[in-house]
Amino acid sequence: MSTEQLMIQSALANWRLTIRRATSVFFELTEEEFYREIAPGRNRPIYILGHLVALHDAMLALLGLGERSHTDLDEIFIKTPDQTVASIPSAEELKKYWTEVHGELLEKFKNLTAEQWLQRHMAMSDEDYSKDMTRNRFTVLLNRTNHAGFHLGQLVLARK
Amino acid sequence: MSTEQLMIQSALANWRLTIRRATSVFFELTEEEFYREIAPGRNRPIYILGHLVALHDAMLALLGLGERSHTDLDEIFIKTPDQTVASIPSAEELKKYWTEVHGELLEKFKNLTAEQWLQRHMAMSDEDYSKDMTRNRFTVLLNRTNHAGFHLGQLVLARK
Repeated sequence: MSTEQLMIQSALANWRLTIRRATSVFFELTEEEFYREIAPGRNRPIYILGHLVALHDAMLALLGLGERSHTDLDEIFIKTPDQTVASIPSAEELKKYWTEVHGELLEKFKNLTAEQWLQRHMAMSDEDYSKDMTRNRFTVLLNRTNHAGFHLGQLVLARK
Repeated sequence: MSTEQLMIQSALANWRLTIRRATSVFFELTEEEFYREIAPGRNRPIYILGHLVALHDAMLALLGLGERSHTDLDEIFIKTPDQTVASIPSAEELKKYWTEVHGELLEKFKNLTAEQWLQRHMAMSDEDYSKDMTRNRFTVLLNRTNHAGFHLGQLVLARK
């Protein structure tokens, strides 16, 4: 295995571990726990679930790997804070999307070559990319893993 | 820049960002906030600070980059849970160690070549390493970044 491939394996192992741990928490939380603030005045697990689904769904387009399925979630879970939108999807619905989006991402990740991981992501122009070559798919994977881990740290506090 | 170097740059950027964000929180918290549980029955910021200092201090030895300075913190902040040890170092002391240990790590990181990042870490035998070549310095960096990010997600909840 080439050194690039080894590094990609490490990054993917971290992604899978983080998603697996978050999946465990989301599928263990009770309906009541989903709607209880993690700390006073802070996000509820239902918001973190929707937030991560929306952001990871957007990774498909950002990485040029496929079409998004849930652009409608951006308004509720990315552009506006928790407890400002009256009607939001249920935990059941969001958990279904969660499973689908991560299944699709992992499937697409498996087929990327090292060279493809190092290519620029889709929100970058060629000109911007030439200025900062670290703005590639691999960097997006690391950033999103860290972001998911950040919220996982909060999620575990919601679990009994 | 080689593709390996690009990937290392991405991973280091993530490490620095995570440490910088955690530093901001630790240096903004009031003395009172350091000793208040983040959520009922959960860790206090003082414990997370000591925990990360101890673990990152241990990275020096694990990565074969130098001697540890704070093995005495392991007992209080890694081996035993929060609020079980009566006398622990002050936030001031731990913040001083925090600054020192991350300064030293960054200094050492700067001088590592791509090849050195891919070498096995010190807790691995040659035999184990031959079975799993992803157990290298680079993987440790990714894992520790994610771990720090996990606790950062909790820390921001402690901030007013």
